[in-house]
Amino acid sequence: MSENELLTDVIRQSRETALLESTLALLEWDERTGMPKRAGSYRAEQVTLISGMIHRRKTDPKLGDRLNELTASELAQGDSPQAATITRLHKDFRRNVRLPVELVEATSKATVLGQQAWEAARADNDWNTFEPHLAEIYSLRRQEAELLCDEGALYDALLDQYEEGARSEQLTTVLGQLRDELTRLVQEISQSTSGPDGNSWQRSVPLAQQRDVSQWIAAQIGYDYERGRLDETTHPFCTTLGPHDCRILTRYQESYFPSGFYGTLHEAGHGLYEQGLPTDWYGLPPGRYASLGVHESQSRLWENFVGRSQAFWQWCLPHITTKLDGAWTGLQVEDLFRDTNLVKPSLIRVEADEVTYNLHIMIRFELEQLLITGELAVADAPDAWNERYESYLGVRPPDHRTGILQDVHWSAGLVGYFPTYTLGNVYAAQLMQAAAAQLGDLEQQLSQGQFRPLLDWLRTNIHSRGFCLHPGSLIEQVCNQPLDAQPLVTYLRDKLAPIYDL
Amino acid sequence: MSENELLTDVIRQSRETALLESTLALLEWDERTGMPKRAGSYRAEQVTLISGMIHRRKTDPKLGDRLNELTASELAQGDSPQAATITRLHKDFRRNVRLPVELVEATSKATVLGQQAWEAARADNDWNTFEPHLAEIYSLRRQEAELLCDEGALYDALLDQYEEGARSEQLTTVLGQLRDELTRLVQEISQSTSGPDGNSWQRSVPLAQQRDVSQWIAAQIGYDYERGRLDETTHPFCTTLGPHDCRILTRYQESYFPSGFYGTLHEAGHGLYEQGLPTDWYGLPPGRYASLGVHESQSRLWENFVGRSQAFWQWCLPHITTKLDGAWTGLQVEDLFRDTNLVKPSLIRVEADEVTYNLHIMIRFELEQLLITGELAVADAPDAWNERYESYLGVRPPDHRTGILQDVHWSAGLVGYFPTYTLGNVYAAQLMQAAAAQLGDLEQQLSQGQFRPLLDWLRTNIHSRGFCLHPGSLIEQVCNQPLDAQPLVTYLRDKLAPIYDL
Repeated sequence: MSENELLTDVIRQSRETALLESTLALLEWDERTGMPKRAGSYRAEQVTLISGMIHRRKTDPKLGDRLNELTASELAQGDSPQAATITRLHKDFRRNVRLPVELVEATSKATVLGQQAWEAARADNDWNTFEPHLAEIYSLRRQEAELLCDEGALYDALLDQYEEGARSEQLTTVLGQLRDELTRLVQEISQSTSGPDGNSWQRSVPLAQQRDVSQWIAAQIGYDYERGRLDETTHPFCTTLGPHDCRILTRYQESYFPSGFYGTLHEAGHGLYEQGLPTDWYGLPPGRYASLGVHESQSRLWENFVGRSQAFWQWCLPHITTKLDGAWTGLQVEDLFRDTNLVKPSLIRVEADEVTYNLHIMIRFELEQLLITGELAVADAPDAWNERYESYLGVRPPDHRTGILQDVHWSAGLVGYFPTYTLGNVYAAQLMQAAAAQLGDLEQQLSQGQFRPLLDWLRTNIHSRGFCLHPGSLIEQVCNQPLDAQPLVTYLRDKLAPIYDL
Repeated sequence: MSENELLTDVIRQSRETALLESTLALLEWDERTGMPKRAGSYRAEQVTLISGMIHRRKTDPKLGDRLNELTASELAQGDSPQAATITRLHKDFRRNVRLPVELVEATSKATVLGQQAWEAARADNDWNTFEPHLAEIYSLRRQEAELLCDEGALYDALLDQYEEGARSEQLTTVLGQLRDELTRLVQEISQSTSGPDGNSWQRSVPLAQQRDVSQWIAAQIGYDYERGRLDETTHPFCTTLGPHDCRILTRYQESYFPSGFYGTLHEAGHGLYEQGLPTDWYGLPPGRYASLGVHESQSRLWENFVGRSQAFWQWCLPHITTKLDGAWTGLQVEDLFRDTNLVKPSLIRVEADEVTYNLHIMIRFELEQLLITGELAVADAPDAWNERYESYLGVRPPDHRTGILQDVHWSAGLVGYFPTYTLGNVYAAQLMQAAAAQLGDLEQQLSQGQFRPLLDWLRTNIHSRGFCLHPGSLIEQVCNQPLDAQPLVTYLRDKLAPIYDL
């Protein structure tokens, strides 16, 4: 076969694998939306079968041979989509075959059991029964990291799966600077006497109206319902089932409107990214998101940088007031804007505001690095957790439920995943700075509900480029600066200074 | 391998194939409920890939060798679930391998194009563009029948795929008798001056209330939402995605309550059958429905024999009146019962009443037999259609849209399928006769909303028995009489005589 024929064949194979992966995504979407209660164990059998098929396809030695040959060829040179396809598929292949089936299966089993144990442990506030599960999971992920790690920190071998090319050394510097800046900001805010009280959100809104508003706002920012849908679930997410099928899910609370509203903006931000990827390359790296951090930058950008801005509420409030049949009459833009930006140290990550959220992440990032090397024993993790909460946020969890047992991630084997959340915030700030510099008066546009210029800018600079570069290189190219926490700090200070009279 | 090991292996293989088949069912369910508009072509690729995998598994020569060996063994003797498994799987295997891939692919392509052409042709009332498609489809199904037919009529080789063991000769006798009885009944009714006018249903009911009523009535007759769900779609259906996941779908018309209500009862009848099959045998013949005719008997039994009875409305009316916030106040059981049983010859099968429905089917059954042998040319089918409508129903289609172009079946390659609808009615009447003889005062039970005894009887006699016998043998065993149209005729006459003063 010629090199071009080899590439065509590899692409055909990978597209076929993507058909199975997207089928798996449907099985999971259905499980988390409306699958009947008792259908779970059979669903698990379906998922196991198809996952196994995917794994066999991805570790097929013939695929490896072809990718070896292609990597040595001219086609792999440069940064064309073809070259990116070869490079990234080859990298995936080598990672997949490095991991013995026994380790993959043991990890899969440990994380299924781990998540079940976590759910029970959290409900019972019972660290002791969960501890051996977590120890086992960390031990397995450590083995994996050792098998994958050629150089650098063990942790980086895991981090790389979510954020290719990221290194803990660099993150420690950049995020450490962010941590110091934000703890200082939190202290200043805590000393301020002029902050918002959050009262604007103390109004219940019927679920049917919340659903209408959510459907509407997602469409307003550009989410395309001919290529997606908005549903409800317990833990909101975004999933892609095909080049023209990206679905988002949110959840509503009658007594707390922002939950469904910002949940929708967040997931729609993810959805806009997926809907902007090159459909011709679906199932291949150039048709895929660049990293979890870049993905999160898109959700945070629409949820926070746009959705929690004063300009946004200037445009949005009259529309919502109409949609809610006058239930919001009397509310002022200024009140909503202030209450939407209430900053308050708390124990629970998913309920945190834009500032303290990153401190929650830093705690996890620091701990998981220590846990993966063994410098910190799993048994000592709860104390380390509580001490950091006290030191960074000035609050100490009264129990494990609101402390180390609050997140599902580690029990699901996701080690190295947390920093991508804060990376998303950092990237979003860098992107907004670059967009504002190029788009003219962005604030003016947002205050008139003109979201298209911003979306088009993201489409051109991020979405349409898929995964052809390391996320770090992509951001650096687009923003003309390397990873930098300063824009995020500046953005937060600029927004919060008038609110808190800093 | 020992024979038992062989059987274990075949069962394991078939269960794995069923995991793929149920995944395919989810892909289709999703396509017909909420899939985004533009996702269709990728969905088709997913379906094609998984269908191909299923086909390869089902025609795997190793499977054939094992089934050959098992068929010759002791294990295949008698009517145990094991024997039924061997016999039916072997039969399926032999059928699958008899058909050359070229024919399967040509049929698949012709029916995809055929359905598209049908949709356009029906909309445009244009027989001529559809005719060549139909000719091609009949030619391909004829080739298939010739390859599969060892003895007897060509048509039977197709019929057997939907109703194992059924023969056109027997059906012609039994259904011919039914046709003669029912045309006579229709004539008598048309001469009656005391029939209902259908006015009770001329009240619109808000969709939200219709949804509530449908959810409720399905649960009342025993449909289990922990193992299923009720959704909405354009063409209602019932589909099974696993041993504990059988979903039903209906559609509502604000101005015509019976559409959603009886649609739900019909699909819930199918659903009750699926939910009553032995879950331990899921994916194998003993865990599968016995035939399409038996399946239809379950839907018709709940929709018509139960749901259109006077006893049912005695119980149901007060409940619905409450649920509809008094919108039905003043309606009498007698009115609803009479209007629910209005008999009126019409052109469209899916809108037909319980009596004339079977005449619509007879017309199709007679024509498709002639078309498959070539005794009737496809070009002459519209005339033959119209003449039979005039002769059996006294109405003549003014155009093709309300004539031969009304059904999707033939364009989808479903030849030999139609008679299973009337077989369902015939079986249902036989089953209700047997159930009434064994359950004491069934009418009294229904009038009090006690559906459990009837459901339990069906569970024991039909549902739990899966597909271990020919459907004909199953019905004969349970009802203690062979296939017989008389119970259906008697049931219809007994119900309609007082309504029409016959």
